[in-house]
Amino acid sequence: MGAPLFDRVALIGVGLIGSSLAHALRRHGLAGHIAGHARSRRTRERVVELGLVDSIHDGAAGAVGGADLVMICVPVGAYAEIAAAIAPALAQGAIVSDVGSVKQAAIRDIAPHLPAGVALVPGHPVAGTEHSGPEAGFAGLFEGRWCILTPLPNGDPAALARMTWLWERAGSKVETMTADHHDLVLAITSHIPHLIAYTIVGTATDLEEHLQGEVIKYSAGGFRDFTRIAASDPIMWRDIFLNNREAVLEVLGRLHEDIAILQRAIRVGDGTTLENHFIRTRAIRRGVIAAKQA
Amino acid sequence: MGAPLFDRVALIGVGLIGSSLAHALRRHGLAGHIAGHARSRRTRERVVELGLVDSIHDGAAGAVGGADLVMICVPVGAYAEIAAAIAPALAQGAIVSDVGSVKQAAIRDIAPHLPAGVALVPGHPVAGTEHSGPEAGFAGLFEGRWCILTPLPNGDPAALARMTWLWERAGSKVETMTADHHDLVLAITSHIPHLIAYTIVGTATDLEEHLQGEVIKYSAGGFRDFTRIAASDPIMWRDIFLNNREAVLEVLGRLHEDIAILQRAIRVGDGTTLENHFIRTRAIRRGVIAAKQA
Repeated sequence: MGAPLFDRVALIGVGLIGSSLAHALRRHGLAGHIAGHARSRRTRERVVELGLVDSIHDGAAGAVGGADLVMICVPVGAYAEIAAAIAPALAQGAIVSDVGSVKQAAIRDIAPHLPAGVALVPGHPVAGTEHSGPEAGFAGLFEGRWCILTPLPNGDPAALARMTWLWERAGSKVETMTADHHDLVLAITSHIPHLIAYTIVGTATDLEEHLQGEVIKYSAGGFRDFTRIAASDPIMWRDIFLNNREAVLEVLGRLHEDIAILQRAIRVGDGTTLENHFIRTRAIRRGVIAAKQA
Repeated sequence: MGAPLFDRVALIGVGLIGSSLAHALRRHGLAGHIAGHARSRRTRERVVELGLVDSIHDGAAGAVGGADLVMICVPVGAYAEIAAAIAPALAQGAIVSDVGSVKQAAIRDIAPHLPAGVALVPGHPVAGTEHSGPEAGFAGLFEGRWCILTPLPNGDPAALARMTWLWERAGSKVETMTADHHDLVLAITSHIPHLIAYTIVGTATDLEEHLQGEVIKYSAGGFRDFTRIAASDPIMWRDIFLNNREAVLEVLGRLHEDIAILQRAIRVGDGTTLENHFIRTRAIRRGVIAAKQA
């Protein structure tokens, strides 16, 4: 193993993704030193106990001093505050990247704060579990998954190449696209599925109490898959929806139209419409399996 | 192992559930003879090749002659026709049961056809996979899962006891409830989740072609869980929605209200409503895990 890819990586936020990244950096020898920052004392203590970082810092600015890579791994709603806090401490030539599920808002909230000589490479590893916190991380989280980078038009190609290399070493397949395209694709593949799962599980939560127990008991009929998705981190998801509003509302509008079609078919007893719809959706599943994302 | 629980079991329909039942009957020595009926020649040939039954029959009536248990394992929309066809051939003292996901319609379509001296015990094993057909079955499908029996008010207690015993031997936990209560609970835990999954995947199917490929590529963000559900048997699901119309439309109405609340919160930027909603849904997931249905 040669010299690490980065001398010092600062992880701003050490939840599921941040801690998985720490594991991956260590396993593949990608960082000479891992500096961590977490807002809560409890998380910082857990991070130290778990041996995830080489140094832990109360403040984000303290963690980024001397870092050649700063990875922002906090909910998107905290980006602007973090960017403002770390800006004065960033080293010349440093790369600032992130792992958030919305990319236009990431650029909007981070870019204006960065000094000249610091490269922004927004990123999004399309991977996750329903678990949160520093205990939830594992090095294999990114293996075989896509990582989408959304470089700015005037971005630094060398910084993009280093980030591509980093994610490939972590086991991911890397793709680049524009931030607005990313936000539309992810609205469909991730944000709307989560919103609907949260809604269905919420509807069940509001049921009469005796029904609630039964919903849990008989969840194997389909409901349990939704509960898994709807157990993801609440703050992270709040921030995703607030920061990808346009794409989410656009896709939700399409979804409403399609629900209305099936709802009407059920109401009037139109079996043909239902059957044809259900046959078409099977093809998409075959695509997911063929793409090895199942 | 003593005498089998049933001398002759007739499986009317040998898809995922029927074939899994055949495996379970064999593994636990519950049937002296398994007679099978499937409508299509291709399925009948596969059933014989797979060794799932002791005799195969072109007609449903032929399969039920001399059977002390007749299990109807076809889509709910075919129940009335099947019941009419087998009625003249049913043996005195036989039990007729089924495995369908709606129970009021099952009773409506089967009961009127049955002669005196034949007991109806409607049943629903809450288990399944996204695969269909006789190749998809396996004996373990029912293990640790619930099987709901919805006996009629004037039903035969001895027949209920034998069916309870059968499902317990197959590894299931058995619960009884009324058919209308079953249909409401399953609308929430299974039918609506499937309807929504079908809708979301359908919305994706209608996207511009270049987006479709990307939806599949990045499906790990949540979408893939919906594609699994939406790959289930189209005819079976068409029949479920057509035959549980009232409960499905009732729950869908509640869901619409809840989507509207979250949609509005996103539109006006109301993070508190989103966050509170997402925190509440986590508790349901914990319940599912505690109930060992995850």
